[in-house]
Amino acid sequence: MAPKHLSAFLLAVCVVLLALAVPLLAGDPDMLQDFCVADYKSLEGPLRLNGFPCKRPENVTANDFFSDVLASPGNTGNPVGSAVTAANVEKVPGLNTLGVSMSRVDYAPSGVNPPHTHPRAIEMLFVLEGSLDVGFVTTDGYLYARTVCKGELFVFPRGLVHFQKNNGGAPAVAISAFNSQLPGTQSIAMSLFGASPPVPTDVLARALQIDGGVVEAIKTKFPLKF
Amino acid sequence: MAPKHLSAFLLAVCVVLLALAVPLLAGDPDMLQDFCVADYKSLEGPLRLNGFPCKRPENVTANDFFSDVLASPGNTGNPVGSAVTAANVEKVPGLNTLGVSMSRVDYAPSGVNPPHTHPRAIEMLFVLEGSLDVGFVTTDGYLYARTVCKGELFVFPRGLVHFQKNNGGAPAVAISAFNSQLPGTQSIAMSLFGASPPVPTDVLARALQIDGGVVEAIKTKFPLKF
Amino acid sequence: MAPKHLSAFLLAVCVVLLALAVPLLAGDPDMLQDFCVADYKSLEGPLRLNGFPCKRPENVTANDFFSDVLASPGNTGNPVGSAVTAANVEKVPGLNTLGVSMSRVDYAPSGVNPPHTHPRAIEMLFVLEGSLDVGFVTTDGYLYARTVCKGELFVFPRGLVHFQKNNGGAPAVAISAFNSQLPGTQSIAMSLFGASPPVPTDVLARALQIDGGVVEAIKTKFPLKF
Amino acid sequence: MAPKHLSAFLLAVCVVLLALAVPLLAGDPDMLQDFCVADYKSLEGPLRLNGFPCKRPENVTANDFFSDVLASPGNTGNPVGSAVTAANVEKVPGLNTLGVSMSRVDYAPSGVNPPHTHPRAIEMLFVLEGSLDVGFVTTDGYLYARTVCKGELFVFPRGLVHFQKNNGGAPAVAISAFNSQLPGTQSIAMSLFGASPPVPTDVLARALQIDGGVVEAIKTKFPLKF
Amino acid sequence: MAPKHLSAFLLAVCVVLLALAVPLLAGDPDMLQDFCVADYKSLEGPLRLNGFPCKRPENVTANDFFSDVLASPGNTGNPVGSAVTAANVEKVPGLNTLGVSMSRVDYAPSGVNPPHTHPRAIEMLFVLEGSLDVGFVTTDGYLYARTVCKGELFVFPRGLVHFQKNNGGAPAVAISAFNSQLPGTQSIAMSLFGASPPVPTDVLARALQIDGGVVEAIKTKFPLKF
Amino acid sequence: MAPKHLSAFLLAVCVVLLALAVPLLAGDPDMLQDFCVADYKSLEGPLRLNGFPCKRPENVTANDFFSDVLASPGNTGNPVGSAVTAANVEKVPGLNTLGVSMSRVDYAPSGVNPPHTHPRAIEMLFVLEGSLDVGFVTTDGYLYARTVCKGELFVFPRGLVHFQKNNGGAPAVAISAFNSQLPGTQSIAMSLFGASPPVPTDVLARALQIDGGVVEAIKTKFPLKF
Repeated sequence: MAPKHLSAFLLAVCVVLLALAVPLLAGDPDMLQDFCVADYKSLEGPLRLNGFPCKRPENVTANDFFSDVLASPGNTGNPVGSAVTAANVEKVPGLNTLGVSMSRVDYAPSGVNPPHTHPRAIEMLFVLEGSLDVGFVTTDGYLYARTVCKGELFVFPRGLVHFQKNNGGAPAVAISAFNSQLPGTQSIAMSLFGASPPVPTDVLARALQIDGGVVEAIKTKFPLKF
Repeated sequence: MAPKHLSAFLLAVCVVLLALAVPLLAGDPDMLQDFCVADYKSLEGPLRLNGFPCKRPENVTANDFFSDVLASPGNTGNPVGSAVTAANVEKVPGLNTLGVSMSRVDYAPSGVNPPHTHPRAIEMLFVLEGSLDVGFVTTDGYLYARTVCKGELFVFPRGLVHFQKNNGGAPAVAISAFNSQLPGTQSIAMSLFGASPPVPTDVLARALQIDGGVVEAIKTKFPLKF
Repeated sequence: MAPKHLSAFLLAVCVVLLALAVPLLAGDPDMLQDFCVADYKSLEGPLRLNGFPCKRPENVTANDFFSDVLASPGNTGNPVGSAVTAANVEKVPGLNTLGVSMSRVDYAPSGVNPPHTHPRAIEMLFVLEGSLDVGFVTTDGYLYARTVCKGELFVFPRGLVHFQKNNGGAPAVAISAFNSQLPGTQSIAMSLFGASPPVPTDVLARALQIDGGVVEAIKTKFPLKF
Repeated sequence: MAPKHLSAFLLAVCVVLLALAVPLLAGDPDMLQDFCVADYKSLEGPLRLNGFPCKRPENVTANDFFSDVLASPGNTGNPVGSAVTAANVEKVPGLNTLGVSMSRVDYAPSGVNPPHTHPRAIEMLFVLEGSLDVGFVTTDGYLYARTVCKGELFVFPRGLVHFQKNNGGAPAVAISAFNSQLPGTQSIAMSLFGASPPVPTDVLARALQIDGGVVEAIKTKFPLKF
Repeated sequence: MAPKHLSAFLLAVCVVLLALAVPLLAGDPDMLQDFCVADYKSLEGPLRLNGFPCKRPENVTANDFFSDVLASPGNTGNPVGSAVTAANVEKVPGLNTLGVSMSRVDYAPSGVNPPHTHPRAIEMLFVLEGSLDVGFVTTDGYLYARTVCKGELFVFPRGLVHFQKNNGGAPAVAISAFNSQLPGTQSIAMSLFGASPPVPTDVLARALQIDGGVVEAIKTKFPLKF
Repeated sequence: MAPKHLSAFLLAVCVVLLALAVPLLAGDPDMLQDFCVADYKSLEGPLRLNGFPCKRPENVTANDFFSDVLASPGNTGNPVGSAVTAANVEKVPGLNTLGVSMSRVDYAPSGVNPPHTHPRAIEMLFVLEGSLDVGFVTTDGYLYARTVCKGELFVFPRGLVHFQKNNGGAPAVAISAFNSQLPGTQSIAMSLFGASPPVPTDVLARALQIDGGVVEAIKTKFPLKF
């Protein structure tokens, strides 16, 4: 029997055995709906949902709504000089079904959080340290951009290409809010030049109106992940 | 003619005059839907919407998506020792229709952000400075509570009663994310004891199972606002 | 047989039985989407969802959409003199995914349905018998209140604190509609004074601006549930 | 003055005139979002929205959330022997944006609330008096039907054809809850045979697989409304 | 072992067995949220959801987002002279959770797609070949109808009764877009006269204001499916 | 007459005319909610909404739900060799509030619909003529791609970068469905290299890990629109 069938059968076994053995419903289904804390253990079984199934309420603790994942700076020693640390439903199980999450972005001096989109969320960015040049581009091609300093904030509408750049000589830090438990981040450069399998070179050459050789050269900077 | 009819008539005038005078649609309706920046000037006219009408796209600037309202601490010199500063759609016009907002909470030493609910949002609180005792109560009466320190975060599910207390001897600061452009805040104590007109004393006495005199005494601490 | 072997054995049994017995998909997935009747038996297994999984359509009957749970008055012999009986997704499985539910409220003479919120629903209350004083408090602290008599109705907006009081000398009855399959009810007094573990006394004292001793005295009226 | 400046100019005029004439906007846009009471006066002007614009908060009273429209029985002296009285956003302005409404249905003895759909809502029906035969048909053609007596309830899923019949010799009454501020009701017979202009006879004849003459005969029972 | 521990135990067994047998969770729960491809194999097990559970991301291929189901004409050799072929979530697993689907409708000369509703979707119809008379009826009984030719399109609002008729002498074809992964189709004639068990004859007779014998005669044209 | 007096005069005229002409509400607010046909004339006035206000129902005709905008091929004589023609709420007023739209894409031989996103919609593409190489890239960098021929379809999940290329020697045509009345299209190349004002060259150079001179060279291919 293939491993991937195991837990489905065990679930069926549970149903049968429990139908025989359990006199009545325990638990507190009321609570289920105040929250639905993600049951990460479900990832060990075959069932995948849009989001996560819930932990049984008797197993939920205050720690499910807590995280220290944003307490430490990310490592900005990379080609773009920035690092995003997410506190989303994959890290904070209590966020499941709640439609909100946060991220921390660290920037080396002159570091760039390169152009990207969040397919499923609006972002509101609050600067903790330093000063950033930020901007987003509308579907009509307008760029809305300005400098945002410590204590100030900026909003990036749903799904639009946006970026930030540390315009100072010291590290900068921002904290972002999203109206999704898992906003998703699609780096434009990675999507075009680092996809696996690759986006055909002729498609990119025609889109960017450049020579295929230039496309190939850029692709070498984005090693395939898979 | 009553003032409140003025702008409705001017709107009608506009329609008639422009129907005669303007050869065709200008503007860029495309842009409208990448965002709908709140037109605060509409508050001067009679029209009220669920949210706000939008500024014309040609009048939108990057500043509509920007705010420095959270840069300065609130005044915690009040009976509860805390102050909430909101960066919602009433302060950041670009948030209109985008479903996200932020707040800053300042706490004096031992200050309390007293039990309250947000009728329209989930809250995710990130501690900037200090250390807080936080908690929320489910509809079943469970309290989920713990201490949250600098750099850590905690989630409060939709609509549930929650609170924070600065458990240290120095001021504390937190920044919160909400999945609503205007979450609303309903302070429990203010709603019960400071509503205007007042909630009947016998209703409160019976609800709290205390003497009417005690209710009256508490009410004196919450002077009517209107 | 050791437990580990038991489930392995059951696994093998299941493999064989299911391989023999389930020739193909059967069922009618079309129907699933006209409704998704809650499968209460799922509560006996480990899986918890936001809401409920569905019964197989071939097991659904008209009775899944029916209930007599609101036919009898609730017992109003309690300190507040009222009783709420809910016909929500926990009682009427056909309501699952449908976003609507009802409640019946019975009031003894002078009985009070004490201040509470529904974190996930708007309420529309229709008076079947008697006459009620009703009200809700906005996030700004306005109280909207009036008397509602037999045959009349009143609306309580989402998430706001509200209450009803029987202002007559005979029992009263109301029927309420909610736009949620499980609106949740958070009694303010219970949440503040009867939570388990308790909300800290100093938080409540500061919030209500009363002495800690008074808080402790009120807490004794609300025995812990857990 | 160029036409495209004209409306900006008129808007500016509005602003100035209103700034002079209206002592203070005052008001509290905060409140707008606890509710958005329908401004029926807007129907006198040219603006039509999906739903209604809101009354200014300072003009809202408790009566906006109240109605006695369901207190009196409807007139069942008609061919089908039933009458539906709606308490929706067109009658109860406070319901605007709140997503809930109610109806009262009166049935003469043997009266029928004929097959119909609600394009925008789920219905939950509670029997106040008498006994009804009720049913709905799924998209697969199953009829789920049963008798529902005084104090009992039944649920009709979104958009599906359903009906009720008074199976007793005395008048019956029911109260229904909907998860829409304006559910809409599409009577099947009226839509097919009483539409204006008429649905072509050959379409109906082919759909029902009957003779065109029979279709014409039925149409005579449903006089055009417009 | 107490029954209530049994399922926890079996769950633990699952965890252990799978931890041993499955080398690594691998997968990327991130991906889950870019899409949730329907896992049709789940139909072999007991679990039913509103929609479908997702395939594990490592099993998803481009073919899950592809279909040729609309490439061939449907068989219009039936009493109404039309055939609808759906490309919904039951045929295209990648549509799960994405809220869109398509259909192809073929019409024999003079063929009719008889009056029907989609309880869960708006329809936008594009004519590929031929010329159609189309229309929908509002809840007020207005018919909005006109002829739509090759290359033209027409919109049918949510839940309203609508129909199409091939007004030409050659076959016609249309392609429709829906904003639901499974819009559902409720044929009016089938729902009234072909439901199983049958809608009571007296209900239909009273609704249509025709003789019961005529109702019975129509019913014979719609043989029961179940 | 000074402008300020003009509008005052017009005001007075309006008062009189409207007082005489509009005896009462009239109209049919019921209808408003079966649909809300976009009132394009509102674009001549100052009011902008998220979407459009509605035409008065008495002015709505079947033509509001109709369009022939997709009947003719777009002009593919451009650098990428493709043309998108949209039938969205800006062209089909009846689509307002209905959440669906369509597009037609024409491709010259070897023409490319270059990488782009739709910030607000899922796309389902149906090939009318020819054969396309299509693909989308997930947030994790996987490319899901394949060839789709006449009569076949493919789904692009929400917000993800995707493209199509005509892989044949003859023109190709596709028709797409979207679950938004105005999906928005963000061309990646245009957003990065043709935005106005321009995205800073150093941001792009760092994001793509190429020399600033190459960025500048690409920018020259995308002349500023504004």
